[in-house]
Amino acid sequence: MKVDGIASGQIIQRKADGTLEYQRDDLTIEEPLEIRVGRKTVATTMRTPGHDEELAAGFLISEGVIRAIDKIDEFSRPANARNRNNIMAITLARGAGTKIKSRQRFGTISSSCGICGRESIAAIRQNLPPIPPTKHVRVPLATLLSLPSRLRRQQGDFARTGGIHAAGIFDLKGQPQLVREDIGRHNAVDKVIGRAFLDRDLPLAEHILLVSGRASFEIMQKAVAAGIPIVASVSAPSTLAMEFARECNQTLIGFLRPPSFNIYSHVERIILD
Amino acid sequence: MKVDGIASGQIIQRKADGTLEYQRDDLTIEEPLEIRVGRKTVATTMRTPGHDEELAAGFLISEGVIRAIDKIDEFSRPANARNRNNIMAITLARGAGTKIKSRQRFGTISSSCGICGRESIAAIRQNLPPIPPTKHVRVPLATLLSLPSRLRRQQGDFARTGGIHAAGIFDLKGQPQLVREDIGRHNAVDKVIGRAFLDRDLPLAEHILLVSGRASFEIMQKAVAAGIPIVASVSAPSTLAMEFARECNQTLIGFLRPPSFNIYSHVERIILD
Repeated sequence: MKVDGIASGQIIQRKADGTLEYQRDDLTIEEPLEIRVGRKTVATTMRTPGHDEELAAGFLISEGVIRAIDKIDEFSRPANARNRNNIMAITLARGAGTKIKSRQRFGTISSSCGICGRESIAAIRQNLPPIPPTKHVRVPLATLLSLPSRLRRQQGDFARTGGIHAAGIFDLKGQPQLVREDIGRHNAVDKVIGRAFLDRDLPLAEHILLVSGRASFEIMQKAVAAGIPIVASVSAPSTLAMEFARECNQTLIGFLRPPSFNIYSHVERIILD
Repeated sequence: MKVDGIASGQIIQRKADGTLEYQRDDLTIEEPLEIRVGRKTVATTMRTPGHDEELAAGFLISEGVIRAIDKIDEFSRPANARNRNNIMAITLARGAGTKIKSRQRFGTISSSCGICGRESIAAIRQNLPPIPPTKHVRVPLATLLSLPSRLRRQQGDFARTGGIHAAGIFDLKGQPQLVREDIGRHNAVDKVIGRAFLDRDLPLAEHILLVSGRASFEIMQKAVAAGIPIVASVSAPSTLAMEFARECNQTLIGFLRPPSFNIYSHVERIILD
């Protein structure tokens, strides 16, 4: 039985009282998705099926392959492939995605060679502009503190499986605009960014991204590609994520576990009253 | 200040009582590592520096590029590269690692094309034999329940940063043999497997792997490459991890949160009294 990225499996469960039971358990589905641009395979990611068009589009935005102004003519799955549900092919509109031929390989920019962390940041800054300095993009402390519970209320799958990540886009009043779940942290972020791209809502210049997992370098890279000025994580950031956020004019919040949290960069966007 | 994969950064912290403080915070270091075999770059991973030789060796074992019987002649870092600390070059002994030329690309085997989950399993089973059926490899319930706290006792970094994953190898009596930490779940597993390889301890046929994060397909793949019959996770497995474990004769334990846990495959290795 497969519903909404969840499948059931027969397992043995040991309960807190020590009893053992055979029962069915809900598991998050993990399957590969091959992303193609034209006939060229640009990436394969292990993902939870669903919202594959968003994932593919968001991946290309996150990698700087296509920009907010670009257009996608068509999403398609090959007619004859046996695993067509694990392939998403994108046809770009004329003039879009000009960077594809010049790139040696995909995956994150940092994957291309043994560059150091600071050079990883420099490479990305060449491709993706930092967040512009705007004084009106600010969020009250109380709004920030309300985000984790708002995200959880939108998360159907997590409660059932405990094995899925969520990414949410909120406006500056804390209203959820988009929430997506996936077994991969990066995929959940790509899905919300892809949806915003398809809705012509990029850049998300007055929005907050909240992720259920850690804030790594790649998450910050995806956020800057979508023009998101504020990134919050319920868990820890890495050194490179913090350095990247400081250089790219992003506000980075970590360990957002109300009533406490940490601010790692650009505190000016938080109204601390 | 950088010590043991941790760096300190100046942050603003909101405490539970609502007060704000400027203070220093420990963050997990994230930097790229380029893994080379000879002069060929085979992969780059975002990792926590430290134990780079183990990470590089473990990666090659996990991918089926080298086998337990193979030998590494030399680990080296290029003398002149500015980022030499982010590069690890391996020179294989004559006759080792014959698979390198025949492989199109690295990363996980599943990354090579838009195969379905079942075909991902089949592809790996071609390269890596399943766990052999041995009747004496069994672990008592009480031992299994003791593992998470034993792992935590070995984890120095996690307590400080909250942002690092751990992988531990235990014998069937629950004694920790190897523990490694890394910002990436996969890297922590590669490091313990690489250490075991360098110590000529592969296959880990009478051992348990405990991971602090989720049990995904790739974790199970790495475990079977190292010959590990029992994998336990404190979190959720995916559908594909469960299917892989069932086919490869691996015991998969999830949500190992004493006193409860789930058994997803090959229960015969757990002595339930």
